[in-house]
Formats: sequence, C-alpha cells, structure tokens
Amino acid sequence: MWGGRFAEGPSAIMREINASIPFDKALWRQDIAASKAHVTMLGARNIVSAADTETILAGLGKVAGEYEANGVPENWDLEDIHMTTESRLAELIGPVAGRLHTARSRNDQVATDFRLWVRDAIDETLAGLDALRRALVEQAGNHAESIMPGFTHLQTAQPVTLGHHLMAYYEMTSRDVSRFEDARARLNRSPLGSAALAGTGFPIDREMTAKALGFDSPTDNSLDAVSDRDFALDYLSAATQCSLHLSRLAEEFVIWASQPFGFVRMADSLSTGSSIMPQKKNPDAAELVRGHAGRIMGCFTSLMVTMKGLPLAYSKDMQDDKPPVFEAHGLLRLSIAAMVGMIADSTFKTERMRQAAELGYATATDLADWLVREADIPFREAHHVTGAAVKLAESKGCALDELSLDELQAIDGRVDERVYKALSVEASVAARCSHGGTAPVEVRKRVAAARLALGLGA
Amino acid sequence: MWGGRFAEGPSAIMREINASIPFDKALWRQDIAASKAHVTMLGARNIVSAADTETILAGLGKVAGEYEANGVPENWDLEDIHMTTESRLAELIGPVAGRLHTARSRNDQVATDFRLWVRDAIDETLAGLDALRRALVEQAGNHAESIMPGFTHLQTAQPVTLGHHLMAYYEMTSRDVSRFEDARARLNRSPLGSAALAGTGFPIDREMTAKALGFDSPTDNSLDAVSDRDFALDYLSAATQCSLHLSRLAEEFVIWASQPFGFVRMADSLSTGSSIMPQKKNPDAAELVRGHAGRIMGCFTSLMVTMKGLPLAYSKDMQDDKPPVFEAHGLLRLSIAAMVGMIADSTFKTERMRQAAELGYATATDLADWLVREADIPFREAHHVTGAAVKLAESKGCALDELSLDELQAIDGRVDERVYKALSVEASVAARCSHGGTAPVEVRKRVAAARLALGLGA
Amino acid sequence: MWGGRFAEGPSAIMREINASIPFDKALWRQDIAASKAHVTMLGARNIVSAADTETILAGLGKVAGEYEANGVPENWDLEDIHMTTESRLAELIGPVAGRLHTARSRNDQVATDFRLWVRDAIDETLAGLDALRRALVEQAGNHAESIMPGFTHLQTAQPVTLGHHLMAYYEMTSRDVSRFEDARARLNRSPLGSAALAGTGFPIDREMTAKALGFDSPTDNSLDAVSDRDFALDYLSAATQCSLHLSRLAEEFVIWASQPFGFVRMADSLSTGSSIMPQKKNPDAAELVRGHAGRIMGCFTSLMVTMKGLPLAYSKDMQDDKPPVFEAHGLLRLSIAAMVGMIADSTFKTERMRQAAELGYATATDLADWLVREADIPFREAHHVTGAAVKLAESKGCALDELSLDELQAIDGRVDERVYKALSVEASVAARCSHGGTAPVEVRKRVAAARLALGLGA
Amino acid sequence: MWGGRFAEGPSAIMREINASIPFDKALWRQDIAASKAHVTMLGARNIVSAADTETILAGLGKVAGEYEANGVPENWDLEDIHMTTESRLAELIGPVAGRLHTARSRNDQVATDFRLWVRDAIDETLAGLDALRRALVEQAGNHAESIMPGFTHLQTAQPVTLGHHLMAYYEMTSRDVSRFEDARARLNRSPLGSAALAGTGFPIDREMTAKALGFDSPTDNSLDAVSDRDFALDYLSAATQCSLHLSRLAEEFVIWASQPFGFVRMADSLSTGSSIMPQKKNPDAAELVRGHAGRIMGCFTSLMVTMKGLPLAYSKDMQDDKPPVFEAHGLLRLSIAAMVGMIADSTFKTERMRQAAELGYATATDLADWLVREADIPFREAHHVTGAAVKLAESKGCALDELSLDELQAIDGRVDERVYKALSVEASVAARCSHGGTAPVEVRKRVAAARLALGLGA
Repeated sequence: MWGGRFAEGPSAIMREINASIPFDKALWRQDIAASKAHVTMLGARNIVSAADTETILAGLGKVAGEYEANGVPENWDLEDIHMTTESRLAELIGPVAGRLHTARSRNDQVATDFRLWVRDAIDETLAGLDALRRALVEQAGNHAESIMPGFTHLQTAQPVTLGHHLMAYYEMTSRDVSRFEDARARLNRSPLGSAALAGTGFPIDREMTAKALGFDSPTDNSLDAVSDRDFALDYLSAATQCSLHLSRLAEEFVIWASQPFGFVRMADSLSTGSSIMPQKKNPDAAELVRGHAGRIMGCFTSLMVTMKGLPLAYSKDMQDDKPPVFEAHGLLRLSIAAMVGMIADSTFKTERMRQAAELGYATATDLADWLVREADIPFREAHHVTGAAVKLAESKGCALDELSLDELQAIDGRVDERVYKALSVEASVAARCSHGGTAPVEVRKRVAAARLALGLGA
Repeated sequence: MWGGRFAEGPSAIMREINASIPFDKALWRQDIAASKAHVTMLGARNIVSAADTETILAGLGKVAGEYEANGVPENWDLEDIHMTTESRLAELIGPVAGRLHTARSRNDQVATDFRLWVRDAIDETLAGLDALRRALVEQAGNHAESIMPGFTHLQTAQPVTLGHHLMAYYEMTSRDVSRFEDARARLNRSPLGSAALAGTGFPIDREMTAKALGFDSPTDNSLDAVSDRDFALDYLSAATQCSLHLSRLAEEFVIWASQPFGFVRMADSLSTGSSIMPQKKNPDAAELVRGHAGRIMGCFTSLMVTMKGLPLAYSKDMQDDKPPVFEAHGLLRLSIAAMVGMIADSTFKTERMRQAAELGYATATDLADWLVREADIPFREAHHVTGAAVKLAESKGCALDELSLDELQAIDGRVDERVYKALSVEASVAARCSHGGTAPVEVRKRVAAARLALGLGA
Repeated sequence: MWGGRFAEGPSAIMREINASIPFDKALWRQDIAASKAHVTMLGARNIVSAADTETILAGLGKVAGEYEANGVPENWDLEDIHMTTESRLAELIGPVAGRLHTARSRNDQVATDFRLWVRDAIDETLAGLDALRRALVEQAGNHAESIMPGFTHLQTAQPVTLGHHLMAYYEMTSRDVSRFEDARARLNRSPLGSAALAGTGFPIDREMTAKALGFDSPTDNSLDAVSDRDFALDYLSAATQCSLHLSRLAEEFVIWASQPFGFVRMADSLSTGSSIMPQKKNPDAAELVRGHAGRIMGCFTSLMVTMKGLPLAYSKDMQDDKPPVFEAHGLLRLSIAAMVGMIADSTFKTERMRQAAELGYATATDLADWLVREADIPFREAHHVTGAAVKLAESKGCALDELSLDELQAIDGRVDERVYKALSVEASVAARCSHGGTAPVEVRKRVAAARLALGLGA
Repeated sequence: MWGGRFAEGPSAIMREINASIPFDKALWRQDIAASKAHVTMLGARNIVSAADTETILAGLGKVAGEYEANGVPENWDLEDIHMTTESRLAELIGPVAGRLHTARSRNDQVATDFRLWVRDAIDETLAGLDALRRALVEQAGNHAESIMPGFTHLQTAQPVTLGHHLMAYYEMTSRDVSRFEDARARLNRSPLGSAALAGTGFPIDREMTAKALGFDSPTDNSLDAVSDRDFALDYLSAATQCSLHLSRLAEEFVIWASQPFGFVRMADSLSTGSSIMPQKKNPDAAELVRGHAGRIMGCFTSLMVTMKGLPLAYSKDMQDDKPPVFEAHGLLRLSIAAMVGMIADSTFKTERMRQAAELGYATATDLADWLVREADIPFREAHHVTGAAVKLAESKGCALDELSLDELQAIDGRVDERVYKALSVEASVAARCSHGGTAPVEVRKRVAAARLALGLGA
C-alpha cells in the first residue's frame, strides 16, 4: 500500500511497532461513518460518479456488517483500521474502492474518526455523570438533616449534614460536566478534507461532510487539522480532573468504612472478602476508583509528553494518541458506574456519625460566634476565650456543654446561660444558614435547585 | 494566633515547613481587596458597626500602602499573608482589627484570594495570547504567498505557504484563548462567606461581596468552596496545553535556524552566542520556551497529585497549590512574550524555503491527483503510478518535472503534457484552495477573518 | 561576553528568560571549587603559568569570600553564576582572569558544578534518612509488643505490633538509602575537561581535576558529558520514591490522629490550631509531607519532559534542570526532618490501639489456621468454617471468642476448647513468628539487626 | 470464594472493575512456579503430607500444560490468575487443592509473582540493551573517522566524528544497564511467606522458597512485603530514563533523515510510505520510539500516583500496578529492538555530513585555541578576536580559512600563517584528543574498551 517504491517489506519489528490495528480497530464505526460521508460528498460534487458512489456506499455497508458480526480482523500488514477497511472493500467491490481515498488522506481521516470517537466518549461520560449526580442528589435529599462531623485536616471541626457533604460532590461533578461540555464544543469541528496536510485541489464540500457527521463546521487550517490533538488532551484533562474528584470521594468511603469510623456499610455487591481473613469486607470498588485516578492521570501524562515539541504537520508519534484515551475512558466509565452504585446502595450509619459529631468539641466555633454576637467582643478575642474553655473541658474529659456556667464565667464573665442553646450539634448546624451553608434548610434549597437542573421531580 | 491551648510553640522545622508567607505574599493585593469587600459587607449588615468598619477599611488601606512601598515582611511566625496583614492591622488600629475575621475563616479567605489571583493571571495570559495572535496574523499576511516545504514526519511532503503554516499556530492559540476563557468562566464564583467549611450563622450577604470582587455569584456549597482547587487545575491545564503548542513552534524555530535548514534568522535580541564558539548564534529563547513546557507540565502534575485522594474539607496539603501556579504563570508569561518577539522579529529566509520546497518530490501528490482528475483512474492506482515516477526520478537524480514526457508515458500512457503545469510548487499550492487549504487565496481569507476577530484593520 | 559579533543587545524579555543567575547562584561553592581545581591543573600542565595560576587562585578565594559575606549579586546581564564569578574575577585581577576559561566551556563547567551540588544533596539526604531510620528503630524497639490492628484495605485484618508496623518504614527507607547510594555511585564521574562538546586540544589532565573534586574518574565521552542529566533524574527519582514512602506514613498519621481512630497524639510542636476552631489540633506537618510528594513528583516530571527528545549535545532547554532539583531537595529535606520529629515526638495511644485490634474479628485467620493445624482440614474449607463463625458472631454482636463452644461446634464439630487459646490478640501476634512476621520475638530480632546496621548500641 | 458470608453476589460493575484476570493472566508462569516452590516447602516442613504435595505438584503441572496449550481462560468470577489456577486445580485434584493456600495469602502470592515477572522483564531488557550497545559500538568503530558537525543548540558548533557521537549513546545505554542492574539487585528478595500482612504461625521455611525461586533472601518485614511496589517503580524509572535516551537518538534520526540534513538513509524495513504522497519515506520507527517515551513515562506516572498516600498494608489500588508495567515493558522492548535495527541498518551519508561540518565556521574555536596556545593571549581575548574574524567571513560569505592572512592580521597582528593548519575539520577533530574527546585516536580507544566490556572481539 506504499506505492511501488519500497524494495524490501517492513521487517518483523517494524510490522509490530507500526501496526495500530490492535487498538485502532475500536474506531471502526467512526471510520465507516466518515467514509460514507466522504464518498457521498464526492458523489454530490461529481468527483466520483453516482454509480461508483453507490457501489462504494453499499460496499462500506457490507464491511460494517461483517465487522458487527465477526469483529475487525487484525492483520498487521494492513497496519490500521483505514487500510483494513479499504482492503476489504477492494476485495468486495474491486478497484473502484480506490476512488474512496480521493481528496483525503489517512491524516485527515484518522483525525476525523478519532474526534468522532472522543465525542461519543464524552457523551457517554456525560450520561454517567448525570446518573452520578442524580444518585448524589437523591441521597443528599434523604440526609439533609443527618448530622455528621465536618472535618478539616481530618480533624473534627464543626458539625455538618451528610446531605451537605454529598452536595459538595454534586458541585464537583457539575463542574466536571461543564468541563466535558467545553471540551465537546471545542472538539466539534470537522478536519475531513484537510487531506495530508495542505488541503486538496479537488472541489470538495467540507461543510457537507461536517454537517453529515454532526460537526458544527469544518476546521480552518489544514496543517493544524491533521496535527492537532487538543481534543484528546481536553478529554483527558476533563477525565483526569473528574477522576481526582472521584478519588476524594473514594478515599472518604475507604476511611468511613473502616472499623474505627464505621460511618458507612458498603453494599455487598461492591465489596469483596479476603482469601485468608473471612471477616473482611473490603471496599474494593472505592479503592479501585481511587487507584484508577493514577492510571487516568498516567494516560493524560502520556499524551502530553508525546505531543511536546512535535513539528508540524502529522508525525507518527501521534499514533500513540489513542491507547491512552481508550484506556482512560474505559477506566473512567467504570469508576463513575461504581461510584453511582456506592452512593445509591451504601448504608450510611447516621447514628454513628451523629455520635462522632458530638465528640471533639465540634461546636467550639459556635461558642466563639456566640461571644461575638451576644457579648460584642472582637472575634479574635472570642477565639481565645473559647480556646481556654476547650482546654478546661479537655482536661476534665467532658464536652463543652458539660462545663458548668460557673466554670465558663470563670473564663469570661460575659457568658450567660443562653450559651448552652448554641452548643448542641443541631443548633450548630441549623445556625449555618448562610448561602451554601450546612443548615438543613439551606441544603434542601440546593437539593431542590439540583433536582430542577437534573430534570428530577420535586 | 492558635488560641490559648498550645503549651509549646512550633518547632523550628514546623515553622519552616508550615510558613507559606515566602510565596503567598504574592497574594497581598487580592487579600486586601477581599478583606475590604468583607468588612464593607459586615458593616452593611450591621455585624460590625459603621465606625469600626471605617477604622478597619482605613487600616487596610494603610497596610496596603506599606506593602506597596516596602514589600510584604516575611515573618515565619505569622505563617501566611492573612495573619501577616491582620497582625499589622492590629498594630495599627488595635483590637478592633479582630472584628475583621468575623464570619470568615482562612479557608474561605485563601480560596477567595487565590481565585482572584488566578483570574488576574488568566487575564494577563489572554492579553499575551492576543499579542501573539496579532504577530502571527501579521506575518501570515506578509507570507501568504511564500512557498516552503510542508512536512509530515519531518519529510518534505507537499509545498505549503509560510502564511498557512503560521496560521496553524493562530488556530492553536485561538483554542488556547477559548480554554482560558472557559477556565475563567468556571472560576468566577465567590467562596467568601463559606467560612471554615460549613458556612456561618452571621447574617452575611454573599452576593454583595461576590459582586464587589467581580465574581458572577457566590458558590453554592461551603464544603466544596474551601476544598476546591479546580480553578487552579483548570488554569494549569490551559497553561500546559498552551505551552505544548509553543513547544512545537519553538522546536520548529530550532530546526529552521539550524545551518542545514537555514529557514530563519533569529533576531540578535533573542539569541545568544557561545562562551567558547564565537560563531554560534543560538536560538536560546526558542529552546527555553520548549524547555519551559516541561516545567509547566511539572507544575500541573504537582497539583494534580497533591489533590488526589484528599478527603473533605480543607487539608493542609492544599497549601501546596500556590507555588506551582505561580511558577507556571511566570514561565508561561515569559514564553509567550518571547514567542511574540520571535514571530515579529525573525527574518524568514523565503528563498531558501522555496528551494527546499522544490526538492524532495513535493508535488508527487499533484501528479497522482492529476491522474485521478484527468485520466479518471482510481486514486489508489494513481498513487502506484506516481510511486513509479518518483522512483525513476530518484534513480536519475532529477526532479519530477525533469522527467521527459516519454519517460512518464512509459510508466503510464494516460499522462500527457498538460501534467507539467501541475508539477510546479506554485501550481501545487494554488490548487489547494479547499476550505482551510494552503492556497494563497484561501490563506488571505483566513488572515482577513482573523484580523477581524482580533480587531485589526483590514 | 558573546564576542564582538552581536549588533544588538538582548532585549528585555531575553534578559529575563535567559538569566539563570536567580537560581544558579546556589551553585557558587561548587563553581569556585571546580574553577580552583581546573586552574590548578592548568598550572600543573603549564597551560597557564605558575604566577597566573596563583593570581587566579587568590582571586577566586577573594570572590568566594565576598559571596560568603554578602551573597552572590544578581546581575541579569551576566546571565549565570559562571559569568558572574568570572566577571568579578576580572575586576579583581584584570585580564589574566581570561585564562581561567582555557580548555573548558560553560557546558562542562555547569555539568561539573551541578553534579557536585547533587552529590552534596544526596549526602545531606542520606544523613536525614539515617536520622529517620534511627527514630523508627528506636520507637519500634519501644513498641515491639504494643498491639494494634493490622489493616488491609483499611479494614481490620489481623493484629500486629506497632513495632512491626514502624519497621515496615525502616525497610522502605533502607531501600531509599540504597537508591540514593546507587545514584551517587553512578553520578560520581567528572565531566570537567569535556569542554563545549568535543573535548579540547590543550594537554589537560582530567584525572587530576576529577580526583581533586572527589570524583571516581573522568567521564568517557565529551558529547555525553555535556548532554547528560541522568544524575539529576536519578536524584529526582530517588527523591520521588522516598517522598511516596513518606506520604504513606503521613497518611497514616493523619488517619491515626483523627478522633475516631485516636491512635496517636501529635506533638504540639508539629501541629497547628485553627483560626476559627480553637479546639482543633491539626496534623499539618503530616499533611504537608503528604502534599510535598505531589510537588516532588512534579519536579521529577518537569525534568523528564524537558529532556525528552533533545538532540545532542547541550541544548538551552537543559538550563531548566536546576529549579526542579533545587525545589525537590528543599522539600524532601524538610519532609524528612518533619517526619523524624513526628516519629520521635508523637505519643502513640497504645491502649486505644489494642482495643481497636480486639474489634473487627481480627483473629479470624487464627481460627482458620487452628482448624488446618489441629483438625487437618484443607485451608479453603477452614476458611469457610471461619466465615460462618464470624457471621454468627456478627449477628450476635459479640467477639469470636465470646461464641460458646456449642455454637462453634454446631458450625464444625471438629472444634474443641483448645481453640480459645488461639483467639486472643496476644496469641495471634505471638504465633506469627515466621521470618519477617509480626511476633514480638521476631520484631526484636529485626530491631537488633537494624540497630547494628545503623551503628546504634544494643 | 469469599467464604460463606456474603448474601449477594458482586454486581456486574463490580465483576468488571474487580476482575484482574484480563491482564494478570500474564503472570501464569510465575504463579505456577511460586505455587510449586510453596507446596514443595510445605511438604518439606510436613505442613502438607508428602502424598498431598505430590498430588498438588502434579496438578499444577497439568494446569500449566493446559495454559501452555490453550491459554489462560478468562472467567471474571474467578477474579485473578491465582483463583483461576486454584479453581482449575480443585477441579483436577479435588479438595486437596485447598491445602496449597496454607500459610500464604493472595497478598504475598501476587507480590511474589509480580517480582518474578519484573525480574524476567529486566533480564529481557538487559539482553536488548546488550544488542543495542553492540550495534552502537560496531557502527562507532566503522565511523571513528567520519566527520560530522557537532551541534549545540542544534547549531553547528565544532566538528566531531560520527563514531564519537554514537559512543555518546553507548555511555547512556551503559548507564541504563547499571540502572536496571541496580533495580534487579534491590528487587531480588522473596515476599513469599509474608501471608496476608503479618506472617504466619505455620513453621514455614522462607529461605527455602526464596532459594527455589532464585531470590537472594526472604524480605524482612511482612507488612512491607505485601505493601511494597518499589520494585515495579524501580523498573519503570529505569525504563523511562532508557526511553528518554532512545527518544533523543530517535529525534536525531528524524532530523538527520530530513531532506535539508540528509545525514542518514533509513532502511526500507524501518520506514513507511504515505498513502497520498508516494515519494515519502517516513522514519516511522524513529518517531514511534520517540512517541513511546511519552507512553512509558505515562505508565511510570500512573503507578507513582496510585501508590501515593496508601496506608499499610495491601490496598486494592495496588491492583493497578500491573497494566502500566506490562505496557511499558512491551513498548520498551519494541523500542530497543527498533533502535537496534536503525543503528545497524541505516546508511550514514558521511560525505554529506562532512560537507555540513565545513559550513558554519565550525573551527572557530580552533582559531581561538590557536591564539591562546601560540600567541599566549587569555582565552577571553582570543574569543573576541575570533568573533571579529567570523563576522568578517560571514559578511564576505566565505569560510574562515578563506580569509586572507592580511585580513586576519588586520584583526589581530599576532596571527601568522601556521593558523591555517588548525582550521581544517580534520585538524580540528584530531586535535581534541583529551580523555573522552572526539579525536579518532581517542574514539578508537573507547570503542576498544567497549568491545572488551561487551565481550566482542578486538
């Protein structure tokens, strides 16, 4: 297929290092679709006759049927999905198959196929994120009033509600959605017709093929169109950031499922046991989601490094664009699906969470805030007073609201008995009703807005 | 400043590892602006009295004046820019300074400051990219008809125009612009008022501070608001992709400036000599831009890894968010500026480029296309005929259009003398007038559209 | 300094992007040492006269004294530490200073300086790791019998001893030591005398300078010597792997310091409080160590990417070698120091650990093993029996050894009362006395061997 | 296989995310070997009877035979290679198969298998590097006197010999060898017998299994042994650095094969043509090797990120250790093989190289050095004189040695006619005979030493 010029065939190593068919066969649907769009346009512009166009379209349909039924054959000598398809087409319809490649090159062809594939991957990911956000919102609604310790530095800081905590991930995954949408909008232009690197002299209609393939418009520079893998990097960047969010939630599941925390009981369907320790119930799915963040980030790294410093236009290095994208998508798809299951099917042990929230002097800030509000002292001073109260309680081994009024007043005379109302976890949580705060009333507002955004009922 | 509870002071190592003031002092302008917005709102909501509000605002103005004049003092015991400012404020205005921290925490404060800083960095980058795109468009206009070899695999493939080549980078940097704009839109929400992690019980007005600081709206979840560094990752992702584009152009400058290519003469102002080889004129600026892509990618990696698997809400690991962003921005700013200079001030040796375009059988595709068009043979067959012609020319050591008609017809009888018209580099380039193709007429269209988009005259 | 050829001076941007003096001034001691070794050799080989040699040596001593007293001046026009020093030398001793650069180039000079710096960094790191291993061994000795839950998947798996757990980090850091030692051995060759890229025609003695600078031998290929940054990558690789180990221990400190675990009380000197939550005692040092793993890995990434695809010999991209190495070393040095403090000064709450070990059916494996040993049933079958016992205990809310013999025998008739002896955490731990196992007797053996290896008393 | 405790089976997603058999089946040989060593030891220690030992060994042999003949079946319900093998064993020999898992766990089992696999990968890589070094030394010997331009900044700097240039890669790959050897030495300890995490109470003999599997000794801490993936990171680090070296050589091949350079003609067997441009001869193999550096680095990144912050002991995240190692090894193996072919089979166009060396004032340093040596002026001054001479030659469009003696003396009166002898490329190269310099005599010395080291004849 390289013309009549090469005296020797490629050596065994070259066959192996050069063959992309083992992975790029995943593009077969996109390759067939783009070839159909291309030849239809060639026909419309009389570059290929109507009869030949029909023959080629029918032949492509037949090849697609064979792939659907039997898979794509892996013949390394045919290098890639494009030559595999064209070769089979020639077997089926004869030399007219050779007209299909008029006014295009593998360079614009693979750029087109791969964009279509990544667009599908984005759409699939968006569907997954939709399911995940629904699961989050559903559970957040269930737990708008379930109190748990809010942590900073993994230290008990202030009481929050579980619904509030879950809605934090709703926010993260909503940003993920916007990131994938941005990537999709930027991707959605058609390189088809850029040919090898310089465009073509055939009177093609790039608008027509763009439209047929669902692209917004053709790309504007042929050198760029065949050299550009931004769309793949945009996908990988969004995927990596999404996986980092999932890794945070996964880490929390792992910690929450530990015996000392005991905040959650993972569904049996997402846990495993141990081959040697029969009592174990391991949060494998959460760990794998966390681990996959590393691999997805590795995929992203891979393509960034590969693209660095490549002169225009197409270089063969760019053949290494597909394995990391395919791998990352597979890992992310599974990670999201597993996380949907974890959110939907886990049992949150709310009683245990509530007990933990009551330990650790989580309402100390409420004492400081009370002093500011009621005794009108500057916050920094209130902070010092509170510190002394916590120190006393700690030394006595009691909770803050178990200190007597005398004890509190010995620390600061401005304290009165109204303070005790502020020191329960319920009061603490209810008080934080600022926009985006943890108060149940505020969480319910956010859940309602999210349900609306997701098209869920009230 | 940690309340009255700690018996020992932080040890020397802790002072050093914990102090962020050596780098976060870069946030001082943002910190002052956010504090002013915060206390103004506290005053408007009567959480702080009008008089105290005035005192605090005046004090903040004074601190800012000191920083402007003398820089920010680096006292490790004050840890960070927030405590440094608050401490100085207390020296200037006394205990009333302590009211400034009402209803906020360092967690939402630093999230706000850092967002403002990144927003400024994006705006500065966008201005740089604007300058770069102007320089590219200007030179592309100058060279819409300058012929050079178009490469794939760094092999001479087809003739293109230098204007077309430069416009490929216009496309890349335009995508960079859209990426930074997307990042800016996603970033532009105010975390201020999220307090430590759970919101606050003070009747604050988050819309008011958001508006005062130029944000579109407040964030919707306080746990997310203090744990989120997506905006920094979005910036770093856009910066990395931009630097990868620049690294490709830089690589081309390095190759083009080599003696065997000789396509470009770098401006003296962006080259250096050698300490031992006086004849050298090194493309240092291009090499540094290429090298910086590595460092910017390292910065991005750094923050991705740091964020992986962090449970909510704020963890101290997140203090490591700023050095990579600060470093990446400095490197990218310089890289863009250097590239503007390289594009604007380099001398492109168009005669040399043209000569190179004529070597290497760059118009072979034109022969194949001619056969398809004029002799109506399938492209694949035309490709084989052309291969035989190239092989013959190569063995004779001549150019394609130096083969005689007899010789060409011996290869394929359908060739006639009209073919010679298709084989000049001018004809080749002029023919490729498909949308986005390299033909001068098409390049001029793209340049005109770009000038319009950039607000340049016709 | 670039000879008489450049018409224009470097522009402002070029001055900024090109100047490495802001960071490479850190090399001044190495630069002076290498220059002294070089000129001493030039004198010995009569390439420079004895008198000039003396003058230059004295001048270098004077420059070093100035740097020691006042720091290295940062004049961007002098670009780097080499020109800064040479320029000052010329001011002090006149044109004879120009003889110092005979038979060398900045390319071999910086390669030499930087190797010396990295060698020092390795030695400092090795000293830090020595301190860390001593602290680990000391505490492991104290806690050879302290029982804690051993986790897999962060689920309680089997009881282990805290000493055993700490000794796992002794193993990791011992591998780190061997990795730094390997890096040091590979690094320790002198590039000095490789000149710009091709060696020199002056009759130099590279063995002499190598020896003077403590290198094992000169490098064997001048092109490689000036293009090679393997030694920096080796350092960064060892540093990254070390930081990953530290990040694991740091993660454990963070988890162990949480209220639900309560396994450790961090020293006040390595914790901080909260600006808004006075009761907090945050494990900041541990979090920063964990976060720094991200930054150190970012530094490593940076240099790997920068080096990718660079043709020989020196390219200016390589100037970006130093900032990541300097940054990584600073971060690793602090991380190790903080970890020494955490190991030495933390209070391990052994009672709490022991209680946790008794929960979670941690001795279930001991039941299975007992069945294999005493009832001679295949392990897989024993595993199933044990699973049933755990399920029963769980449903009754009791510990395994709180099941009655009747209940156990109802599950499997081969159980007899001797089994209870195997089910205490002490028995479980004591039983695992295989080589490298958790039994106190085995831990003591490992501690003794480690003390010997570290030169500590018995 | 998780004991009798789980009410539900794993869901479809869990089956998919949890199954490692699709990739870890690659470990089957190692798994069988380790199982044989383990059961042989159990028999020797009377933990399993002699008869059962024989039965199990025979069964394992039979399973291995089936795998060899038909491949490893992929049943997701059996999760991994360990359960797949054990399950088949049980089918073949009945419940006695359950005795094989006595005193071990999947945690130490997989750690053992994977170490053995990585050790094999290292040995295969070392063999490949041996072949590559032989090819380099062979060609370096052929070209010890072939003159080419030596580049810095890709600018012609000084003439060097091609043999010298190739020997630079001999140095790099020799360091790669030492890095893999260091990794192998550190890896070569046996985790088998560490059991799940804590060791075992069975009286096993870990020395015996270690020896049987070719390990130097058993590991010393069971928690570490099952949590450690340093050996995989060491392999990936060495592989990445090796791939970076290969990427540099690949970049040079790509540049050298370009028409403007024309330094090399790639073998047909390692090039491809274009589907649209029949004249192209693309250096695909070199580009793929360069691109693979990105993917190998991505694999390394992947595992580093995955390991970050994992608490002890085994976490399921670690299941993600194998795909990146398997992928990296496949890519590196091919890259080395392709590079052996490129070195051995390429035609270096030495005449073209020599011509290029004569352009670009490559002997300017020789003029400066001559002035130092013969006129005894300080190098810096000589450097300025040379700069003026180059400037004059450049403005006249002639070579340095085409300047007349009058012209040279007008620049500096100390020049005399002997200088012309120093200005030929042969003289320049021959002069640089310092240790490791480019002089043919020195290159021959290095080649001879390398041949000795590689066991090649003189």
